[in-house]
Amino acid sequence: MNSLEVLIGHLSRLPGVGKKSASRIAHWLLKADRAFVQALGRLIMELPDRVKRCSRCGMYSDATLCEICSDPARDHRTICVVEQPSDVWAIEATHTYRGLYHVLHGAIAPLEGVRPEDLTIDALVRRLEREPVEEVIIATNPTVEGDTTALYLVRLLKDWGGKVSRLALGLPVGGDLEYADRVTLARALEGRQRISSGEGDG
Amino acid sequence: MNSLEVLIGHLSRLPGVGKKSASRIAHWLLKADRAFVQALGRLIMELPDRVKRCSRCGMYSDATLCEICSDPARDHRTICVVEQPSDVWAIEATHTYRGLYHVLHGAIAPLEGVRPEDLTIDALVRRLEREPVEEVIIATNPTVEGDTTALYLVRLLKDWGGKVSRLALGLPVGGDLEYADRVTLARALEGRQRISSGEGDG
Repeated sequence: MNSLEVLIGHLSRLPGVGKKSASRIAHWLLKADRAFVQALGRLIMELPDRVKRCSRCGMYSDATLCEICSDPARDHRTICVVEQPSDVWAIEATHTYRGLYHVLHGAIAPLEGVRPEDLTIDALVRRLEREPVEEVIIATNPTVEGDTTALYLVRLLKDWGGKVSRLALGLPVGGDLEYADRVTLARALEGRQRISSGEGDG
Repeated sequence: MNSLEVLIGHLSRLPGVGKKSASRIAHWLLKADRAFVQALGRLIMELPDRVKRCSRCGMYSDATLCEICSDPARDHRTICVVEQPSDVWAIEATHTYRGLYHVLHGAIAPLEGVRPEDLTIDALVRRLEREPVEEVIIATNPTVEGDTTALYLVRLLKDWGGKVSRLALGLPVGGDLEYADRVTLARALEGRQRISSGEGDG
């Protein structure tokens, strides 16, 4: 097997890339600008070493603290809890949210063996103890796993002093937050509903 | 812009990969096996240096002579002329052809400025002078450019002593040879039609 075939084998393991797409990409790379191809290869090769998790929110970042957590202009009283780092980008793209994030890196899924302790929920609880947070917005996916996780968090934060809300349904049920269009996502964010309240007026 | 965003920017330039697919692939890579990610990066990075064109047929190859050209078990009396290296793989996958290939690396397209001299037609003519070839099978795409190229080759080889044939139409017109299913492609290959004959009985 020559290196082109080995490359195609590797490319076809990427999500959404079948054998024919992999072949198409590999042949395209052979005709592409040499500097671009080498830059792409280097970026992929160095990815595991360069990209870390933000020590506070768990978002992918080149630095110990991510750009959002280290930005004093953001509203540090609000934390939006998402399943995946890509969800952060989806919400950022709406340009309607100015608070911080907390990335769970998954959702509770007992059938797949994902338990609450496999997520960054402990770190979230510690953040709420230390940081001046007033509201937690739960932005898990509107799926069985996302709903389970949201319910778990609501129960966990029952006695916490602040406000807990969740994105308004308006997101297509069964869909994936990352693929929602910006307008729908922005509306769900604006219309978020209070689940419990620190003032007991819930 | 952090390295993850730079990577997504690069990935989204690949054919068939949009911004969302690029993001999906990048995030998948962040969770993928480290050794796999580094191997993929290295393969891409080294691609321009490792993969050359076979000095005889123009197919991509790690060595000076490709695996097909250097295989004594192949039928060296038949050359199948294709537009792209990926077409070679498509025909190989039918398991019905045992001859050699010649890759033109394109098709004649006057409107896009691709002239006969931009292709490897000269090299093909030299091969026919030196090698014991008895038949040339023209397997260009059934498109305007592919038909133009086929016609050009037929005229060019008019006085050459051997047989010239072309893949049977059976391929969907306007389609791309690379994406034909194996059965259709195998049938087109078996039913190839003689265009001219060295014996003058055409």
